Amino acid sequence: MNAQTAAGATATPFLAELQTLEQCRERIDRAWPLMTELYPVCRSITGAGVRMTLERVAAGIPLEITEVPSGTPVFDWEVPREWNIRGAWIDDENGRRIVDLRDHTLHVMSYSTPVDAVMTLDELKPHLHSIPEHPDWIPYRTSYYRENWGFCLSHRVLAGLRPGNYRVRIDSSLEPGSLTYGECVIPGTSSDEFLVFTHVCHPSLCNDNLTGIALASTLAAGIRASARPRLTYRFVFGPGTIGSIAWLARNESRVDRVRFGLVLGLAGDRGPMTFKRSRRGNADVDRIAEYVLRTAGTQGRVIDFSPYGYDERQLCSPGFNLPVGRLTRTPNNEYPEYHSSADNFDLIDRDALAESLAASARILRIAERNTRYVNLNPKCEPRLGKRGLYGATGGRHPGEFEHALLWILNQSDGSQSLLEIAEKSGLPFELIAAGADALLGAGLLRPENT
Amino acid sequence: MNAQTAAGATATPFLAELQTLEQCRERIDRAWPLMTELYPVCRSITGAGVRMTLERVAAGIPLEITEVPSGTPVFDWEVPREWNIRGAWIDDENGRRIVDLRDHTLHVMSYSTPVDAVMTLDELKPHLHSIPEHPDWIPYRTSYYRENWGFCLSHRVLAGLRPGNYRVRIDSSLEPGSLTYGECVIPGTSSDEFLVFTHVCHPSLCNDNLTGIALASTLAAGIRASARPRLTYRFVFGPGTIGSIAWLARNESRVDRVRFGLVLGLAGDRGPMTFKRSRRGNADVDRIAEYVLRTAGTQGRVIDFSPYGYDERQLCSPGFNLPVGRLTRTPNNEYPEYHSSADNFDLIDRDALAESLAASARILRIAERNTRYVNLNPKCEPRLGKRGLYGATGGRHPGEFEHALLWILNQSDGSQSLLEIAEKSGLPFELIAAGADALLGAGLLRPENT
Amino acid sequence: MNAQTAAGATATPFLAELQTLEQCRERIDRAWPLMTELYPVCRSITGAGVRMTLERVAAGIPLEITEVPSGTPVFDWEVPREWNIRGAWIDDENGRRIVDLRDHTLHVMSYSTPVDAVMTLDELKPHLHSIPEHPDWIPYRTSYYRENWGFCLSHRVLAGLRPGNYRVRIDSSLEPGSLTYGECVIPGTSSDEFLVFTHVCHPSLCNDNLTGIALASTLAAGIRASARPRLTYRFVFGPGTIGSIAWLARNESRVDRVRFGLVLGLAGDRGPMTFKRSRRGNADVDRIAEYVLRTAGTQGRVIDFSPYGYDERQLCSPGFNLPVGRLTRTPNNEYPEYHSSADNFDLIDRDALAESLAASARILRIAERNTRYVNLNPKCEPRLGKRGLYGATGGRHPGEFEHALLWILNQSDGSQSLLEIAEKSGLPFELIAAGADALLGAGLLRPENT
Repeated sequence: MNAQTAAGATATPFLAELQTLEQCRERIDRAWPLMTELYPVCRSITGAGVRMTLERVAAGIPLEITEVPSGTPVFDWEVPREWNIRGAWIDDENGRRIVDLRDHTLHVMSYSTPVDAVMTLDELKPHLHSIPEHPDWIPYRTSYYRENWGFCLSHRVLAGLRPGNYRVRIDSSLEPGSLTYGECVIPGTSSDEFLVFTHVCHPSLCNDNLTGIALASTLAAGIRASARPRLTYRFVFGPGTIGSIAWLARNESRVDRVRFGLVLGLAGDRGPMTFKRSRRGNADVDRIAEYVLRTAGTQGRVIDFSPYGYDERQLCSPGFNLPVGRLTRTPNNEYPEYHSSADNFDLIDRDALAESLAASARILRIAERNTRYVNLNPKCEPRLGKRGLYGATGGRHPGEFEHALLWILNQSDGSQSLLEIAEKSGLPFELIAAGADALLGAGLLRPENT
Repeated sequence: MNAQTAAGATATPFLAELQTLEQCRERIDRAWPLMTELYPVCRSITGAGVRMTLERVAAGIPLEITEVPSGTPVFDWEVPREWNIRGAWIDDENGRRIVDLRDHTLHVMSYSTPVDAVMTLDELKPHLHSIPEHPDWIPYRTSYYRENWGFCLSHRVLAGLRPGNYRVRIDSSLEPGSLTYGECVIPGTSSDEFLVFTHVCHPSLCNDNLTGIALASTLAAGIRASARPRLTYRFVFGPGTIGSIAWLARNESRVDRVRFGLVLGLAGDRGPMTFKRSRRGNADVDRIAEYVLRTAGTQGRVIDFSPYGYDERQLCSPGFNLPVGRLTRTPNNEYPEYHSSADNFDLIDRDALAESLAASARILRIAERNTRYVNLNPKCEPRLGKRGLYGATGGRHPGEFEHALLWILNQSDGSQSLLEIAEKSGLPFELIAAGADALLGAGLLRPENT
Repeated sequence: MNAQTAAGATATPFLAELQTLEQCRERIDRAWPLMTELYPVCRSITGAGVRMTLERVAAGIPLEITEVPSGTPVFDWEVPREWNIRGAWIDDENGRRIVDLRDHTLHVMSYSTPVDAVMTLDELKPHLHSIPEHPDWIPYRTSYYRENWGFCLSHRVLAGLRPGNYRVRIDSSLEPGSLTYGECVIPGTSSDEFLVFTHVCHPSLCNDNLTGIALASTLAAGIRASARPRLTYRFVFGPGTIGSIAWLARNESRVDRVRFGLVLGLAGDRGPMTFKRSRRGNADVDRIAEYVLRTAGTQGRVIDFSPYGYDERQLCSPGFNLPVGRLTRTPNNEYPEYHSSADNFDLIDRDALAESLAASARILRIAERNTRYVNLNPKCEPRLGKRGLYGATGGRHPGEFEHALLWILNQSDGSQSLLEIAEKSGLPFELIAAGADALLGAGLLRPENT
């Protein structure tokens, strides 16, 4: 990536501090406290946990907070009541505390209704959830739309429970309130938008999705620190599913501005980077992400769209069909620690997370710069010599930069983007972008749309 | 196929008794007498043999018989005179009978003109046909459009003939009459047609084409026993080439109703099932048949259209270009027994024939059910839970049916057929069809064209 | 190629004497003196060398000569001053001649300005060019657009030079004059053109490009000796780059007549034949050349367009985007002897050159004959028998010619060219062309555009 980056440094100052793996690693280290501080917060799709999370994110980047009242209809759904929890525990008849929310936010099933009762083990058991194959892990369970309560605990503890009476207490509330999401918008010279969506509703799960929150925050901070971009960037931090549904409902009239999009998450495990195509399959973001993964030098893979996963389900529903792909490492459901207490900091590799940051930053950089140009001297080659471009240097070996110029001139009939020229020529995108800058400077190109 | 069929049983009651290999095998056993009774009949492209054949078929399904008079112009051709034969034999000078039509219908060249003469072996020989490489087999020869006569016999007999005088007798007639074909039409709720064509002109050849006749009859009987179908089904039993030409000439103004079609034949040998694409190459029937062969669990193969073979030559001529493919096992000319007396019941494997029946029935079932739908709640996912569809079962494992629902909802923008959704999702067509039924029931879909 | 050619002989009398490798080899032998006589001429992009070269070519075919005055603007360029050279040498201080243009035309850098001076070895050295890795070879250097002078010599000689004073003389002139190119146009019945461009500016380099000159001359002579062709053929013999730029500038209003084109050169080395696609990538000439190389029985390869090489750079610039591909054996820069004195007759294999001739002639023949037809009897097959075409012979085995007829009839709906039919059917183009002739004769086809 070094040579490409060297050329890219000239061509694309945008997100300049996120160009090398070293720079990305340094930014991941700086984002680490955000993750460690957010880890203990008991988040759900509504309530104090989400608000605390967004407040912490807002320490790094400006966030506009939206509260959508419970009961608001959002397409086929309605915003649920707000859930808050103060404590939850089980004592055995000797007063020994078996399970306590204070030990782990996963111990209580999300959206559990209040309980204060004594019951036998047989009565309790249907409300207890564990993972027999991983007896030390606590599972993650929710019951957002069916009133219920439950505890999650390690199978080892569950298996040790003896018959008897148990005192069960869940001090929660499920009351009219609101659903909360936050947005950081960085206006560009164009109203065309790049949308980044990351979910903020999971409690103490690290890969899913403190890594997504960290990535999105770092990217947003990086763009704000760059010169004004061409595209408008919109980062949405919202609860999964109902959050993107609510966001879409409130933004229905303007989503046609979204020209690129990424759902970010599950970004720090050691699995290969995985780009999931948008429903369109051939949107610009699909092509860019495929190029980035293919040329990253790491083992990335690209998979087709399917209608399960995270918020791409809603963003890519047929009534919207937005050009939004998803970038993760190992996808949901495909790693054993998924949705359990084992999705903790041990699962995270800082270099892997840095690599995810580098890939997502490069996707943004290419989207930012991927114009189509028109050669203003299309009949025969122009004389590069009289413009000081013959023998110009800048590539990885003599002649490479000049080859880039010839490729751009030959292909720029308004139909080919710089990325398409990079793919056809086999030259790095950043070198092609630098070549386009040189030709723009020499008055030999104009952007296609002007 | 079991799980698929289980789902399919709910989704597509059409041809319900032809869903499993066992059911198909049972129907083949029931069709066996049709084949054994038709085997000894001396058929040709016109005459009593064809009429007897159609009469026997009409014992199982209603057939509308059409007689096209000799001399009728049919495009570039005209219907030939009618050929009938009462007997044919050769005696040597000792009165020993060398060849007798009563022993095998292949002994006389089809459309042989009458002969009653004594001639030397040298005079006779140009009229004798055998297969030196297979000395025990009798070849099948015809001379429809050039007046001639001939005998076909085993090379062993031919090689044993000694010089001398032979008495030769062919008691045939070639006179104005008519060409006969039969049709069984089963009206559907739509005038869109599925055309099945099978040739009935070959004498005692078993694979070619008693198997095709048996298959078509069984399918027609099966559809008649089902509830009224969506498509109109038209089964044509006609002589090869001139039969399809005559049929096309008489139906020219209405062939645009044919939306799907199959030429059926050579369906019982032990070779792999072979689907030959229509001239269009990408007609719905091509896609359906490819899917059926690919998912059948047997070794099927799909080959491109070429302008030789059976009646697809006419149906796919450029002036018609009908969406008609061809389903056989080993194609014409590609098995040694082809067009010889060795194409007899020994060549036929009842299980292979049952498999051909299962495949063709599934092609019809998918054509019947392969609608495009429009999601009536296209913006974000609808809530399945409030419609009793969340966690609904029906697939091969938990969650599979729900996945089918999500795929259908996501893809149903009116452009994707259920088959395309099945292919994209990797889920069985029958499960997708069952899912579409459930969503129709919940008011979440409408067919694309209404 | 024999059987194909046999059929082709009937179908395409065009270039009849260039159908077999033997015929092509015989024509290469006849073109050999052209190459040996042109070898010693000191050519450049302008001047007496080019004029002598074109005069010699004109001994075999009529050439229309164009002189474009120095200073004429041609798109972004202008025609340079004319360069002529009478002598060039270096003597050491003992009067020993180190280098002499009379020994090899490569010894002087093309477009060297006049010099007459004594200088030290240190002063001289920046003007001396050699190839250290190949110490016996003289490199080929030019400096058309930056005033400079230089000598090229073997590294062995260069390395032996001892310090001292050297007398240096270049007796050249760089003065207003003109740029010269020649054209041989053979009018066809249509104004659609096949353009062949070959460069004539290189001095004593054999593969690059006496082979191209020989090939183009032989093809032009061959077409002139055939019956009047359908296409109009235009052979341009011009200097590289500035020659094609000047030609395009003078023919801008009529280049839309160019329907096919080939840049020819580097045709005699032992490397595999290489077709470089036009910028369009799917022009008719691309498809034809791919077919010819694929079916030639030799190891040809097809590569994508790239904007470096020879005159395809200009002909395929986006403002023209002509359907012009390039046929060479080993491309420029990809063989060690390229642009050195080792590109001499030792590098040339007469059989390889004959093969290049055969391939280019076949490309022309297919272009000439590659019509789309309409079947005038499109509904069902026509009866071949009543037109004497049933059982007609002409292919490599019985039935092949009839298969060709069936393929043509089936595919000829006006959308498929004979080449597309050849590719689909797997039958040789020449057999398909012969079949089309037979069907035209029987009144069963008409050309698509009439």
